[in-house]
Amino acid sequence: MGKSMAGHLMNAGYPVHVYTRTKAKAEDLLEKGAKWADTPKEIAQNCDVIITMVGYPKDVEEVYLGAEGLVAHAKEGSYLIDMTTSSPQLAQKIERTAAERNIATLDAPVSGGDIGARDAKLSIMVGGSESAFHDMEQIFSKMGTNVVYQGKAGSGQHTKMCNQIAIASGMMGVCEAILYAEKAGLDPENVLKSIESGAAGSWNLSNLGPRILKGDFAPGFYVKHFIKDMNIALKSAEEMGLLTPGLQLAKKLYDELAEMGEEDSGTHALYKRLANQG
Amino acid sequence: MGKSMAGHLMNAGYPVHVYTRTKAKAEDLLEKGAKWADTPKEIAQNCDVIITMVGYPKDVEEVYLGAEGLVAHAKEGSYLIDMTTSSPQLAQKIERTAAERNIATLDAPVSGGDIGARDAKLSIMVGGSESAFHDMEQIFSKMGTNVVYQGKAGSGQHTKMCNQIAIASGMMGVCEAILYAEKAGLDPENVLKSIESGAAGSWNLSNLGPRILKGDFAPGFYVKHFIKDMNIALKSAEEMGLLTPGLQLAKKLYDELAEMGEEDSGTHALYKRLANQG
Repeated sequence: MGKSMAGHLMNAGYPVHVYTRTKAKAEDLLEKGAKWADTPKEIAQNCDVIITMVGYPKDVEEVYLGAEGLVAHAKEGSYLIDMTTSSPQLAQKIERTAAERNIATLDAPVSGGDIGARDAKLSIMVGGSESAFHDMEQIFSKMGTNVVYQGKAGSGQHTKMCNQIAIASGMMGVCEAILYAEKAGLDPENVLKSIESGAAGSWNLSNLGPRILKGDFAPGFYVKHFIKDMNIALKSAEEMGLLTPGLQLAKKLYDELAEMGEEDSGTHALYKRLANQG
Repeated sequence: MGKSMAGHLMNAGYPVHVYTRTKAKAEDLLEKGAKWADTPKEIAQNCDVIITMVGYPKDVEEVYLGAEGLVAHAKEGSYLIDMTTSSPQLAQKIERTAAERNIATLDAPVSGGDIGARDAKLSIMVGGSESAFHDMEQIFSKMGTNVVYQGKAGSGQHTKMCNQIAIASGMMGVCEAILYAEKAGLDPENVLKSIESGAAGSWNLSNLGPRILKGDFAPGFYVKHFIKDMNIALKSAEEMGLLTPGLQLAKKLYDELAEMGEEDSGTHALYKRLANQG
């Protein structure tokens, strides 16, 4: 996703420096004229706006708060934007630490996946200071069509958690409905025709349902990343004193799915866990 | 719903006879020219096509298979269409019994609710013999826009169960996402703006989410009826040897919601059960 997003910024005329752990992934951008940096620190020292899209919260923490990280080495008055789906609490910690050096930070996770990134149609959920959001709005608009300021630091991440919470239980419903249809001897494609336009309708049912029926479990969005996100959401909900039984059950089923060796499948592979009632 | 549906048939020129336990509910239809019947038996003896929309499977069983019921008294060659959401197994039993008297039956539950019935935009899911379906297709088309033949007797009911299964877990996701947003101090309306058009999007999120935020828990679809449907789905899944953990959890939460006195609220009142974490 990072590659597509950086490409849109280059197409819009922004000079782009890139760093990634696997340089080969940046080749296309480098051929288009992006400048290579050997370390995050080098990015920090050279850029006014830095956008990160990494893996897990521990990666975010290292890239931002490590001794060789962005916060320690970014220029005063620069902007750091983390578009990784990560911990709201970590986003708040990063903001506090960066503020001491007069550096603005935004947490701005996205939804829309590879396709949304490629087509510059991401939904971008932004937390942090409102003035920093307005300063960066032009940049966000090159990558997404649904850019919404959600409030103080961490609010972008919290909003993404709402997104993942709705998906988690929703996917159970989609997979159980399709399994039921098959067990009952129905034609599941006909069932989708009856139910997808009504109250049972959802993005997952219409977009991933047909892929389940074809036995196509390629990601879209990886099981392993969804588990990461659900872990963040559960921890965050727990810290707020909120019980989320649907999310808890979905997380348990996804953990069992990963144990079945499906962590690199798409999220709709939950069907396989539910079908596996040995 | 029955009143709206019968009204469409009258508008299309069909002569309509009506019976309902509470005659007052039929007044509008009687004023428009419908003929009153004092018993289901009287309907059976006078009509070529009989459509039922009652409450629970036990009501369906009584109306169809009771000594004074439709199957015992309907004319040979007539059609009996049950549009109640009811048990797939009961639909099969009714078909077998009716076939002995050369009466065709269809199970044809609907989705789309009061509004779909009023606007003749129901989704109608039909099980039974395909020739009977084709004979009745014109009649269905007066009440719905999405009329799909799903297969042998019981298949309409099974399809409706798929619909309810998808909704059950989906509603947990919607309610937990909104609760999380509120607990996190977000503006839930802004959260909906960020998430409803993407992978978390669903009919429930877009249509019932805003009503949850307004504290408007009027039904749409009653909690007590949804519990009835989930009971049918769980029993049916069990008979097929299918575990549906999401549905099981949703059913448990809805039972607890009913115990809170909310059985006459709309299904989105599940929010109240999840908010009630005393």
